[in-house]
Amino acid sequence: MDTLATELEETADAVEQLLDSLIVLPEGREARVVEAMRYSTFAGGKRLRPFLVIASADLFAVRREQSLRVAAAVEMVHTYSLVHDDLPCMDDDDLRRGKPSAHIQFDEATAVLAGDGLLTQAFEVLADEKTSHHAGIRTELVLSLARAAGSHGMVGGQMMDLLTEHIEVDVGEITRLQQLKTGALIAFACEAGAILGKADDHERHALHAFAHDLGLAFQITDDLLDAEGSAERLGKKVGKDKDRGKATYVSLLGLDGAHQQAKLLAEQAATHLAPFGPRAELLRDLAIFVINRGT
Amino acid sequence: MDTLATELEETADAVEQLLDSLIVLPEGREARVVEAMRYSTFAGGKRLRPFLVIASADLFAVRREQSLRVAAAVEMVHTYSLVHDDLPCMDDDDLRRGKPSAHIQFDEATAVLAGDGLLTQAFEVLADEKTSHHAGIRTELVLSLARAAGSHGMVGGQMMDLLTEHIEVDVGEITRLQQLKTGALIAFACEAGAILGKADDHERHALHAFAHDLGLAFQITDDLLDAEGSAERLGKKVGKDKDRGKATYVSLLGLDGAHQQAKLLAEQAATHLAPFGPRAELLRDLAIFVINRGT
Repeated sequence: MDTLATELEETADAVEQLLDSLIVLPEGREARVVEAMRYSTFAGGKRLRPFLVIASADLFAVRREQSLRVAAAVEMVHTYSLVHDDLPCMDDDDLRRGKPSAHIQFDEATAVLAGDGLLTQAFEVLADEKTSHHAGIRTELVLSLARAAGSHGMVGGQMMDLLTEHIEVDVGEITRLQQLKTGALIAFACEAGAILGKADDHERHALHAFAHDLGLAFQITDDLLDAEGSAERLGKKVGKDKDRGKATYVSLLGLDGAHQQAKLLAEQAATHLAPFGPRAELLRDLAIFVINRGT
Repeated sequence: MDTLATELEETADAVEQLLDSLIVLPEGREARVVEAMRYSTFAGGKRLRPFLVIASADLFAVRREQSLRVAAAVEMVHTYSLVHDDLPCMDDDDLRRGKPSAHIQFDEATAVLAGDGLLTQAFEVLADEKTSHHAGIRTELVLSLARAAGSHGMVGGQMMDLLTEHIEVDVGEITRLQQLKTGALIAFACEAGAILGKADDHERHALHAFAHDLGLAFQITDDLLDAEGSAERLGKKVGKDKDRGKATYVSLLGLDGAHQQAKLLAEQAATHLAPFGPRAELLRDLAIFVINRGT
């Protein structure tokens, strides 16, 4: 697991360096929206999704400068989703990663536009020739990301999340909600490695199954952290799911049940990687890391 | 000009039919966000940008089912920009095309998500094989749209617009603002026809110059309509630029000066189309139509 910690740190540094060179301040007044994009992008975070892109692409010996670009695009989409989700009309969170949310640090209008700008730039990064010499690979990346992020993916999941406050939902519905809200982008991160690496169907299915279980394990752990964690450690409000009357894996399965389920899913995720043999060690370690993380 | 009116109506019908088949309601609760996407997409509008895509593509005999898809993508981006611009934290407009804005008809959170969903789907539509058999053309479309719509384009223009309320700006800055806010997407609409049609550089430059002047003529006319128009005819609030202390072409050039400038630009736009000869008649007519439109 030491290797994992080092690799996580190294890929986070590399992706941040690339993001820094991609999100360029213009000279006019509109620089403000790019400042907000940069503020939210560089507010920290473990860069788990970028790591998934890079580790998946490494299975197919994809050139690092290509996988890093896709990793940066995924992080832009993730950051945009946080910026919009934090808005007063959405989850109304003033704090994100221990710092004021974008709409607090700037203002609501700038936060909306910063999210829009990040989402748009993600597609610009993917479509650029630097991401792959094969236009077919670039369009497949754009298509897959758009499907994962759109109204039948992440945007749809956030809509469901807002609509299920204060109403009773069962584990089946929570699972579908989370598959859309967080699972789809995590799945894309793994799928992107396979697309870049021209993986065969068998390999794609394996990575998809891994991502599916990993995403759920991740979400259950998030719910556990919200229920058990401290604001100080998490850098955001805790207990907010309960305050909001939101059904979570913890409210539905109990603390013990949720811990057990996360562990089961993480183990199951790892077994899907069998076809890749020892090459997939880092991704296997990640599945365990995800459920043991403190924040 | 009768031909133009007919063509405008026919392409509007065709693009609406395609949008209807593209924006599909899912079965789950998240259907609400897609309902809002559809509500705003089908709230009317002249579909000028789709027409520009199709008329430009027609110059190169592009197959209609391809240009229609790009037209639909451009209209999705245009609609998303209206939905977000109307939000209370932005321009705070309750009325759009004579109907309640999305955040009034639904709610703010749904409006933010509907905009996000439309923007994302635009890239999905472009990246799909149905748009062009050539992956290189599809990536070029994605790249160009992302640049036109992002923080160095439309999003940046909206940021500038918000920042220039109640401060003095000159014609140079207003022009740059409008080139970003509305000009970039109009330019993309024309450029897209050239990309689909594999136009040479000479033809691209001609279309770009046309789009540039057309975009400004369009904006000046918008300012004139806001200063002179009635809410009933426009289907939205009027005089709002003045109320907001916003510099416009009218406040900077006066009513007569603005009318003159719009006419000059429309004529200049038409002359850029000379290389295309009589094939570009519809686009030339459009430039005149744009400055004479009542709404």
